[in-house]
Amino acid sequence: MKTQWISGQWVAGEGEAMASTSPYDSKVIWQGTSATSAQVEEAVTTARDALVEWRKTSFKQRENIILAFAEIAKENGDEIARIISQETGKPFWETKTEAAAVVGKVAVSIKAYHERTGEKQREAAGNKIVLRHRPLGVMAIFGPYNFPAHLPNGHMIPALLAGNTIVYKPSEQTPAIAEFMMTLWQKTGIPDGVINLVQGAKETGIALAESKGIDGLLFTGSANTGHILHRQFAGQPGKMLALEMGGNNPMVVSENYGDLDAAAYTIIQSAYMSAGQRCTCARRLFVPAGEQGDALLNKLTQSIAKMKMDEPFAEPAPFMGPQISIQAAQGILNAQTNLLSLGASGIVEAKNTQHAFVTPGLIDVTNVAELPDEEYFGPLLQVIRYQGLDNAIKQANDTCFGLSAGLLSTNDAEWDEFVENIRAGIVNRNRPLTGASGDAPFGGPGASGNLRPSAYYAADYCAYPMASIEGSEALFPETLTPGIEW
Amino acid sequence: MKTQWISGQWVAGEGEAMASTSPYDSKVIWQGTSATSAQVEEAVTTARDALVEWRKTSFKQRENIILAFAEIAKENGDEIARIISQETGKPFWETKTEAAAVVGKVAVSIKAYHERTGEKQREAAGNKIVLRHRPLGVMAIFGPYNFPAHLPNGHMIPALLAGNTIVYKPSEQTPAIAEFMMTLWQKTGIPDGVINLVQGAKETGIALAESKGIDGLLFTGSANTGHILHRQFAGQPGKMLALEMGGNNPMVVSENYGDLDAAAYTIIQSAYMSAGQRCTCARRLFVPAGEQGDALLNKLTQSIAKMKMDEPFAEPAPFMGPQISIQAAQGILNAQTNLLSLGASGIVEAKNTQHAFVTPGLIDVTNVAELPDEEYFGPLLQVIRYQGLDNAIKQANDTCFGLSAGLLSTNDAEWDEFVENIRAGIVNRNRPLTGASGDAPFGGPGASGNLRPSAYYAADYCAYPMASIEGSEALFPETLTPGIEW
Repeated sequence: MKTQWISGQWVAGEGEAMASTSPYDSKVIWQGTSATSAQVEEAVTTARDALVEWRKTSFKQRENIILAFAEIAKENGDEIARIISQETGKPFWETKTEAAAVVGKVAVSIKAYHERTGEKQREAAGNKIVLRHRPLGVMAIFGPYNFPAHLPNGHMIPALLAGNTIVYKPSEQTPAIAEFMMTLWQKTGIPDGVINLVQGAKETGIALAESKGIDGLLFTGSANTGHILHRQFAGQPGKMLALEMGGNNPMVVSENYGDLDAAAYTIIQSAYMSAGQRCTCARRLFVPAGEQGDALLNKLTQSIAKMKMDEPFAEPAPFMGPQISIQAAQGILNAQTNLLSLGASGIVEAKNTQHAFVTPGLIDVTNVAELPDEEYFGPLLQVIRYQGLDNAIKQANDTCFGLSAGLLSTNDAEWDEFVENIRAGIVNRNRPLTGASGDAPFGGPGASGNLRPSAYYAADYCAYPMASIEGSEALFPETLTPGIEW
Repeated sequence: MKTQWISGQWVAGEGEAMASTSPYDSKVIWQGTSATSAQVEEAVTTARDALVEWRKTSFKQRENIILAFAEIAKENGDEIARIISQETGKPFWETKTEAAAVVGKVAVSIKAYHERTGEKQREAAGNKIVLRHRPLGVMAIFGPYNFPAHLPNGHMIPALLAGNTIVYKPSEQTPAIAEFMMTLWQKTGIPDGVINLVQGAKETGIALAESKGIDGLLFTGSANTGHILHRQFAGQPGKMLALEMGGNNPMVVSENYGDLDAAAYTIIQSAYMSAGQRCTCARRLFVPAGEQGDALLNKLTQSIAKMKMDEPFAEPAPFMGPQISIQAAQGILNAQTNLLSLGASGIVEAKNTQHAFVTPGLIDVTNVAELPDEEYFGPLLQVIRYQGLDNAIKQANDTCFGLSAGLLSTNDAEWDEFVENIRAGIVNRNRPLTGASGDAPFGGPGASGNLRPSAYYAADYCAYPMASIEGSEALFPETLTPGIEW
């Protein structure tokens, strides 16, 4: 099985056997072998060789290839979605939106390239003042499993536009979609070696991150792995490390949350979309103590009970699919068990039904004295009853993360207070936390990343500025600098 | 002696005694004591307390204080220049340009704040899509000695505009100008604790960099210290570390260098300005083998002989002053001795005359088999004779640094080749390497920094983006997400 794409050739991995399993029925949908360190090194060398020509192509040439990719991805949208659904268990209607996001990334990235980087010129006192931007070189890209097409694509498109070449290691949970996306790139006629795919798990990742031949690493994934990478890159400041990690995202419900159904609906979307496997998902729900809060929790409980969880292609369509793996499902249940042992009470307890399916959990953690500041990457929403919006905001900020945060309130003054004080990179009002504008930067402070925001600002970390003062000939001035005699 | 400015109060340092000595006559011009770790911590706590209000002030309020600072700095321009000259030995005419750069930074930073960060809004489908930028928090600023007012100021102004508070540790070689600049800030009425000054050397620096209370560190200084800081910050990705370090900057002279005098003059400016103590100074000069190259070297030798080196306030004014210290002067001479022992030949040998003065050196290192890739931060220019511009560019890029680079050529095709292939952040044609446009980003790849370019892009590392989707109330849509029943 030729599962590595190196220098435009599909070759067999010489490492350990790998398999990808549908989390909803435990069927094997892809088999292969991982890349060895030597193969990773070969991919890096290939990318470095390809860099020589690729970085010199005009922006227009690179843009044309990437626009061709957008066309091909659009034509193959349903197939992209089908494979993602198969591999991750996400509902088919949802993965279609991911396929569309892959295409949409192209136009946004081209706009961002010009606005954030690109080339500018002006004349001043007989000099041309020129600002160019240059690619960094060979970029390693580490993809996550939750948006296995969209998120690596969000690093790739800006990196390629800027003139970098790529060695891509997808999550070992989603090799199939990674491979398919490469076949689409192959159809664009992109020069051999400009993008290379290496498959594998931790060992492959370590080999790639440690390779002397990379100029940077663009990562979307867990805070744990991100912090390991950050330590691995210590003392190498010249290597770009762009980390997008997780969050322990608060959603604060004011007493003025407005319409009950609308509020509950927005919370459901925030906490359980993608079965809680979005980094922006609400993890902590701050609900006012008292009757209004009780009413909301009752409504949530009812809504959760009616929520449909099923296989991705089931009819009628489910809202939620399974977790990415049985292991991940077990992780969520373990987290719940731990919270309960710490004094939490289950409003609705999450349960494993079959395979990697976990039903939505709603757990009241108000009485937990020391709430763990961890990201539970699944459908487990922790409820905290509060008194006074000030206190809620203070508690909401009591996290080392800072990815997303939300407020449900019809009161403008409350929103002003919230947006002024909350510490997060995505801060929504009366809208699901899982919504983010495609033409905005993405990322947050603290343990959520290293302040290299992606999405609209991805152009920033894919290039470095080169500032020039240019004259057509050297000048011998009429007035010499003091202390110079000629 | 009250040498620390903490929470708006001048207090005595409780650490070791410090002194600042004029490098041109070895006279002590400033004495004090350094801040202890406890005092550093107090300054950080103060900055954190001040942050609560400062970050909430409107941009307009912060801008007004900073504009007031610009006015006060302008009025005190000669005094700023005088102190810098006294403390660093740089010629008075030159430090006047540094004082002007301090003032000039304000308008440029305000423009950059709005263009690179600031706030943007648009409406889309009944939502407000808002992009705000938020301060990072408490920023430690480490200043260098070569531009002891301008360069820390280049971190401070953007940091303050964005709403951060500051703990500033200047170079231990330039405490006097740091203290004076604080007295100017004091006159603006900036709230207590928004800027704090701690004086000291390595120990003070370590205490500040290690403080848990800082959210970031903005550094301009040596590659050595920068790399130590990078290791110190390992595993803390959420803390901003912005490093501007050195270079081993190549200047390539084509056979088509044009007018001999103009070429020689441009090289002199590039290599010996500020006695070679600019991070953008040319360190390696690539000269074509053959007669034309010989002619240029002859001209350079003549010009160097006529170059005036003297005390900063001497009349007629000198082109060059001393090195920052006798130790630094010795470092340059040691580097020269080492190069000579490796096979270099002196065209003009650098010499220590008195105190920290070192005369300009021009050393032919063509025959050195393994040229050390080090930054010699002084007036020591290494000449490499080459054949073929391709080779020159390849050798020019053979450095771990990438700050500045230059080409002397009247031939457009040569320039195109150079700018396409050279790896540096400041790349000038027929202009001194030491020239950089004030409204351009500044910084380079490799060991020159961690790709957080400063100057026009400083706004980027002083703030993080906060992207919002806002609605005045939560919505219950007409068509529900698949799998949701109500």
